[in-house]
Parts: sequence; structure tokens; C-alpha cells
Amino acid sequence: MTEQLRPDGSLRHLLTLETLSRAQLERLLERSQSFVRPLGARPPMSQALAGRTIANLFTEPSTRTRVSFELAAKRLGAQVVNLEVQLSSRAKGESMLDTVYTLQSLHVDALVIRDAEAGVPGLVAAHLAPHVSVLSGGEAHVSHPTQGLLDALTVYQRKQRFAGLAVAIVGDIRHSRVARSAWHALSKLGVADIRLAAPPTLLPVEDEFAGCTRHARLATALKDADAVMVLRLQRERMTDADLPDGERYFAAWGLTRERLALARPDAIVMHPQPMNRGIEIASDVADGPQSVIRDQVSNGIAVRMAVLQEVLTSRGDAA
Amino acid sequence: MTEQLRPDGSLRHLLTLETLSRAQLERLLERSQSFVRPLGARPPMSQALAGRTIANLFTEPSTRTRVSFELAAKRLGAQVVNLEVQLSSRAKGESMLDTVYTLQSLHVDALVIRDAEAGVPGLVAAHLAPHVSVLSGGEAHVSHPTQGLLDALTVYQRKQRFAGLAVAIVGDIRHSRVARSAWHALSKLGVADIRLAAPPTLLPVEDEFAGCTRHARLATALKDADAVMVLRLQRERMTDADLPDGERYFAAWGLTRERLALARPDAIVMHPQPMNRGIEIASDVADGPQSVIRDQVSNGIAVRMAVLQEVLTSRGDAA
Amino acid sequence: MTEQLRPDGSLRHLLTLETLSRAQLERLLERSQSFVRPLGARPPMSQALAGRTIANLFTEPSTRTRVSFELAAKRLGAQVVNLEVQLSSRAKGESMLDTVYTLQSLHVDALVIRDAEAGVPGLVAAHLAPHVSVLSGGEAHVSHPTQGLLDALTVYQRKQRFAGLAVAIVGDIRHSRVARSAWHALSKLGVADIRLAAPPTLLPVEDEFAGCTRHARLATALKDADAVMVLRLQRERMTDADLPDGERYFAAWGLTRERLALARPDAIVMHPQPMNRGIEIASDVADGPQSVIRDQVSNGIAVRMAVLQEVLTSRGDAA
Repeated sequence: MTEQLRPDGSLRHLLTLETLSRAQLERLLERSQSFVRPLGARPPMSQALAGRTIANLFTEPSTRTRVSFELAAKRLGAQVVNLEVQLSSRAKGESMLDTVYTLQSLHVDALVIRDAEAGVPGLVAAHLAPHVSVLSGGEAHVSHPTQGLLDALTVYQRKQRFAGLAVAIVGDIRHSRVARSAWHALSKLGVADIRLAAPPTLLPVEDEFAGCTRHARLATALKDADAVMVLRLQRERMTDADLPDGERYFAAWGLTRERLALARPDAIVMHPQPMNRGIEIASDVADGPQSVIRDQVSNGIAVRMAVLQEVLTSRGDAA
Repeated sequence: MTEQLRPDGSLRHLLTLETLSRAQLERLLERSQSFVRPLGARPPMSQALAGRTIANLFTEPSTRTRVSFELAAKRLGAQVVNLEVQLSSRAKGESMLDTVYTLQSLHVDALVIRDAEAGVPGLVAAHLAPHVSVLSGGEAHVSHPTQGLLDALTVYQRKQRFAGLAVAIVGDIRHSRVARSAWHALSKLGVADIRLAAPPTLLPVEDEFAGCTRHARLATALKDADAVMVLRLQRERMTDADLPDGERYFAAWGLTRERLALARPDAIVMHPQPMNRGIEIASDVADGPQSVIRDQVSNGIAVRMAVLQEVLTSRGDAA
Repeated sequence: MTEQLRPDGSLRHLLTLETLSRAQLERLLERSQSFVRPLGARPPMSQALAGRTIANLFTEPSTRTRVSFELAAKRLGAQVVNLEVQLSSRAKGESMLDTVYTLQSLHVDALVIRDAEAGVPGLVAAHLAPHVSVLSGGEAHVSHPTQGLLDALTVYQRKQRFAGLAVAIVGDIRHSRVARSAWHALSKLGVADIRLAAPPTLLPVEDEFAGCTRHARLATALKDADAVMVLRLQRERMTDADLPDGERYFAAWGLTRERLALARPDAIVMHPQPMNRGIEIASDVADGPQSVIRDQVSNGIAVRMAVLQEVLTSRGDAA
């Protein structure tokens, strides 16, 4: 696994939350919170990253995450270039590495990489010169670290604690990088009661998600939960045999108002988007008073500003 | 219909010119004119929109209008993100609204939307928080308000008045958002003599374009006209049966030098581009001394700067 | 051929290196070198082109050259718009010209054009108003002037001279704009011994590349060479009959360590990228101690900064 820290202990890459310490996560959340502004207020702007260049390498041109990273970088004064590239480790990874070496030679300071193939961000990170950082913008089913941070930040904003919380993660956990990064973050930050609820084919294999409980029915997972994280059905990652029918899935696993009533009255509802409304979540829940789904988006740009500033300016100032 | 004005009377959205008052149109044209510079001079630059974020949502990546809005925003100091998205009101508009709520949560101040489906910009505008503006970049066959403003500005620059002018609109009026917005602007500004000239299948239905005269022959429409607006044959909007053959269309409806001679000697020739040269307009007319087609492009960016500045900075300063 | 210089002798367009004088090339190289920074250092940044607008017109969205031009412009303070357009001289070039006239009317100062059709950059340049510049970003098989400059700069950095050098150009020379621009630059700058080595179908026709020697075997071309420029097999430009099989090509023409040993011990290895590793070049040579391939990339952005600054600010200051 690629080392994420510099020899001085500062954060160089962000590929996964799994190996970060609780103190590092707390530091990133604190910095993220400083970039949060209420809806309608001006977003924070600075020149902290003036003269720096960020390259967004996404396989699709128009994801929300790309826009979030792009605006985060621009609001810190950095220059941004977007590349729509299909990285791939085939052919011994050589042509992929040629592409990233080119960006390095163009004096790019950080590469944000979203890729459908596991291992690509780490492979890139392992080959770049020491002054270049890699931020994962979502890696296959493996990891989505900025999403995990924004989920943790969203929980903390509403609960002001992690200890003692019960969090239910519902849906297609097996194929979800979002679930994995949320689990990494929340468990490290002190959430002891994480519940995984999904039909058998969508639950992760047994040796994953250590410390979480597994639920074959939604009701037991939701019981007195403080937060419910609903996942998107990742149809594109499923073989046909696994693919649940939308209507039948909603009947058994969709988060409705009735089911949400099983959770604590102040439970929050989260979703990483894009939502399949009427499949994994009812529209009135998605738009209801317990939904913090739009907060997650706002927190996402705050987290990305914090991470960019951390990796590009923290060198040498860590203990 | 979505309200375009804030409670204080200032302009929040620009979806259509139809409901704007003459005073509002004149104010926008005056502000637009202040951004006009001659070819070869430096364009105006300011930081009036520093700290603001504009998102361009276009279904195709490379339209002239997208570039015009993008440069208008950047020259006022705003940050711009481009998204290539296919908005659609299907599925009760929910997934479309999730996309725009995401942009709102990212602290985007204005969305420029071009969409092939009528009603989309208004639907979006009706759902966003009060501090977010929507500017139409062209809505189906319905409306193209910045085009209507630039057309009016182009006429005014050359004629220094609207009253007493005769304007001929020629070609595929039925499918044209350009014609509708020009009609809204020019009639409200005082052009009483607006002539629609097209083959029967391309004329609008009878209850549209109130106050305009209809011409089944080009000659009567051009007679002593002060301005001739030639429209693009919108082949992509036509069913096969409607589709005129290019050569035959040119023979009957193409604007040639001979036909242009029927208009006033100082008549101006306009076209919204892209042109089908040799179909709706002869090349020597498009490039001739009476053509103001390139002025329209320059006026377009001036209009978009004016509109962006108006919606993003006028709050509270209107009477 | 379109004139590249203004009446005062300053550089207005950069379409080809063929007609530039040695003094002009040296001036551009000198300016380029001033923008070179070592890997890991901050790239040079200025506001020399503040208020200027550069449009990148590339037929594909994500080429390295587009990113290089985009960052070059941004680091000089210019605004950049990217357009993905398929220019074409069909239909008498009229619709292509309408597109570029539109950009001119939007107060764009320079157009960077990459096109697969020979003659397009020159045709555009010949029609624009005098204050607008065209920079070729690669024109069919004809010309790639910024690549030729970066190749010359790379050679000079390592050899500190041009006179007396032997340069071998190896591979698909017939279809290569890179080879043509390198030949233009290097021969004008004083490299007398330029060797072309390729299988017969990939050698240029006889009346091209005056002054170069032709080699039917790699060994004779490499003998005591100071620099070896390996070209990409341009499979997309070849008809099937011409297309060499990759493995057989590598066996006969691939640059291996053994073959490179025929050149001088301090010979440098160059490649314009993207590389077909294992076809025209062995991976251990591409990544080996004699390779300057990544330097070429860094030099590319320096050259593009120099050229942009030259064409946009040199007016009137040339003798």
C-alpha cells in the first residue's frame, strides 16, 4: 500500500482514510469546518494556493465530485486543468504513468484521480516525484476518502459527537467505496455501533467491515439509529443475476417515512448522490426534515478545500 | 410562469424578455452598451463579480453561446465551471433538481442553462434558493433572451431608435427561439412594424406573434425594411415532411443581393448564427457591407456581461 | 503561404518554423529558456498577458498539447477558453471561418489550433483581423512548430551548441509533423548532419527534407549520433498496407539499449509522446539515463509561454 505521509508526518497523498490516525482525521475535519458557510453566504475565498496547479483526471467529464474539487481549488487561488482520461494499469501501467509524468513535468502540484480500476491512484502516487500529491476522487469500490470525510463532518455537525452513536448503512454495501470510506472514518473517530443492512448479494464478504453488525432486515438496522446512510444501487457494478428489480428492492429496502420512524426521532438521513428516488429512498424522505443530503454537498467542497490546503501547504509543519 | 423579479423589483432570473418592462429592457441595453468595445480594442475587464461562481449547463460542450457566457463571467472576475449535462423534466424533474440543488449547495451564484426541452430553465428557477439566479442560454423553441437583447442592441446601434422602424424576420420562425425573443424585445421597445416571412410550414401558428404581419412572399416583407433578420433553418427541429430542400429553399427564400435591394439602402442584415450559407442567406450578403452579423457576436458578450452584473449585483438597488 | 510576421517584423502567427530566420529562432529559444524551472521548483508566473484571451481549438478534448498551452497561458495571467471543434475547409471554408470570426468578435487575442487537415491554421490566420494571432498546435503531417522549438531547446540544453552535432530521426518520418518541424529548426540553427532512418514506406518522398541523409538501416543512422529522436508510429495516418506489425517493427527499428550503444556515449534520446513502448522504443531506453523525454515536456510549456508572450506583446518592439 502506498504511504500517504511524508517522512515528517505531514499528509502528502489522500488515497484512503484507512491508515489515517484519529488525530489526523480530527485535524482534517476541523480544517474542513472552518471552510463551511451557510447557504446564501459567500463561500470562503483565499490565495492560499496561488501559483499552484491542480489537474483533475476523471474518466467522465461532468461528475459532481469533479466540480466540487474544481471549485475548491479555484476558491483557494489555484489553477485547475481538467482532463478526461481513461487511466488504466494495463500494459504494465506504462502509458498511464507516461500521462502522469507529463503532468508532473508541467509543474502540476496535485492530481485528483477518479478511476474505475482499483489500485490506480496508489500506483500513480507511488511513481510521482516527492513534491507531487495524489488525491483520490473515488477508486473503484475501494475508497472515496473525501466522501468519507464529508460524511463524518455531516454527522458531527448534527450530533456534536461520534462516541455512542448508532449509524446504519443501507443498501449496496458490497460495491460501495462510499460505505468503505465512511466505515474507515466513523469507526476510527469512535462510532462503535455501525450496522450494515442489505440483501445477501449486496452485503460485503464476511472478512470485510470488521466490527460492524450485519442485518438481513432493514428494521433491525434502523432501530434507534442516530444516522441512516442510504447508498445508491450501483447497477453498473452488478452482474445481471445480482441486479435487484427496482420496485421489489424499494418494497424491501427502500427508506420510507414509516421505516425511518424506527430510528431515533432526531436521526439524520444521508445519501452520497446521485439518488435513485423511489428505489433506495422515498422522495419525501430525501427532501424531508431529517435529510442532510444537501449539507453533505456543501461539506464536500469544504473538505476538498481542507485536503488540498493540507497536502499542498502542510509540508514540514507537522510534528 | 416563473417570476423573474425579486420582491424589490430587481432582476433575479432572465428566462424570457416577454414579461420585462420597456424600462427594464432599456436599462439592460444601456448597461450592455457600456461593455461594447470596437474590434481590436481591449475588452472591458473588472472585478465586479469577484468571489462569485457561474455554472454553465449546456447539453453540447462547445456552443458559441457557452463561450460567450464563459468569457463574460470571467471578464467580470467571476469563477466559471462548465458542465455538460442533459437536464430533463422526466421522472417528475427530480433528478434534474438534484443536480441543480447540488450546484446551489456548492455556492454557485448563477446557473446558465441551455436546454432543448421547454420549461426546464423556469422549473429550475422556481426551485432554487432566493439568492441563486438562472439565466436562459436558449430554451427549446421558446426563448433566447440574451439573443433578443443583443439583436435589439444591434438594431439600436445602427438606427439610434426603435420607433418607426420596419423589421423583417425571415425563415424558420416556427421553430425559432431567436425570433420569439426578438419579437418580445423589439415590440416592447417600440418597433411597430414587424414582418414575418416564411413558407407556410415554417410560419408560427396564428395566435402567436401578436401585432406582426405575415408574408407568404419574401419581397413584400423586405420592401423598405430597416433591418432583415435571417433565421437558421432548424433542420434538427423539423419532421421529414416539413424539411425544405436546401436549393429550392434558397431559390424562394434565400436572402440575395437582389432581394436585399428591396429593403432600404441602409438596411442592416442580421443572423443569429451558425449560418447555412447558400440556403437561407447568400455568402456575399452575409459578408457584405450591410451585414452586422459579427457585431451581433460582440454585442452578445456585452449583453451577457450586463445581465450577469445586473442579476448578481442589483439586489436592493432597484426602486 | 500565410505571412507570419507583422509589417514591423515582429512575430504575429506561429504556423511553421520553416520561414523563421535563425535570429528569430534563437530569440524564441532564449525567451523559452527564461521560463524553464527545475522539477519541484515553482513554475514562473506573471501577469504579462492579463486581460488577454486565448482560445484553444482542438479536435480532441484532452491532448497533452492542449493542457500545455492552457497552463502556459494561465501562468502568464491570460484567460483561456477551450473549444472542442472540428474545423474543416470544406464548403469553401466558410463555416470554419464563421467560427473563428465569432471568436475574433468575442475579443479573443490568439487562437491555438490543432487540426488534422493541412492548411487550416494558415487559412484561419489569413482571414483574421490584424490584432489576432494564430498558433499552430499541430497541423496534419505538415508542421508542429512549438514541438520543433522544444526539441531544439532540449538539444541545446544538453549540448550547448548546434554546430557539429549529428541528429538521427528514426521511425515514421513520412507522416510526422514533429520530424518536419525538428528539421526546420535544427537545420536553420546549424545542425548539418541530420539523418533520417526508416523503412522505405515511412521515409518521406525524395524532394522533402533537403540536406538530410537517408538510412535504410538503423545502425548507420545511430553511429556516433549526439541525439536520437524516436517518432511515434502514426498508425492512424497509415493505410493498412503500410502498417507495420508492432513486433516486427520493434525487431528492425525499435531503439534498444544495444542499438543506442552505437551512438555517442552522451547521446540523448528524445520522443514527442505518446510512446508506443516496445514498438518504436524499449522501455528501459525511454526511462534510462540518456532519456530527456520528460525534459521535452517541461520545455514544451516554457516554449509555449515564450511564443504566447512574443506574439501578444512584441508588436512594435521588433527592429
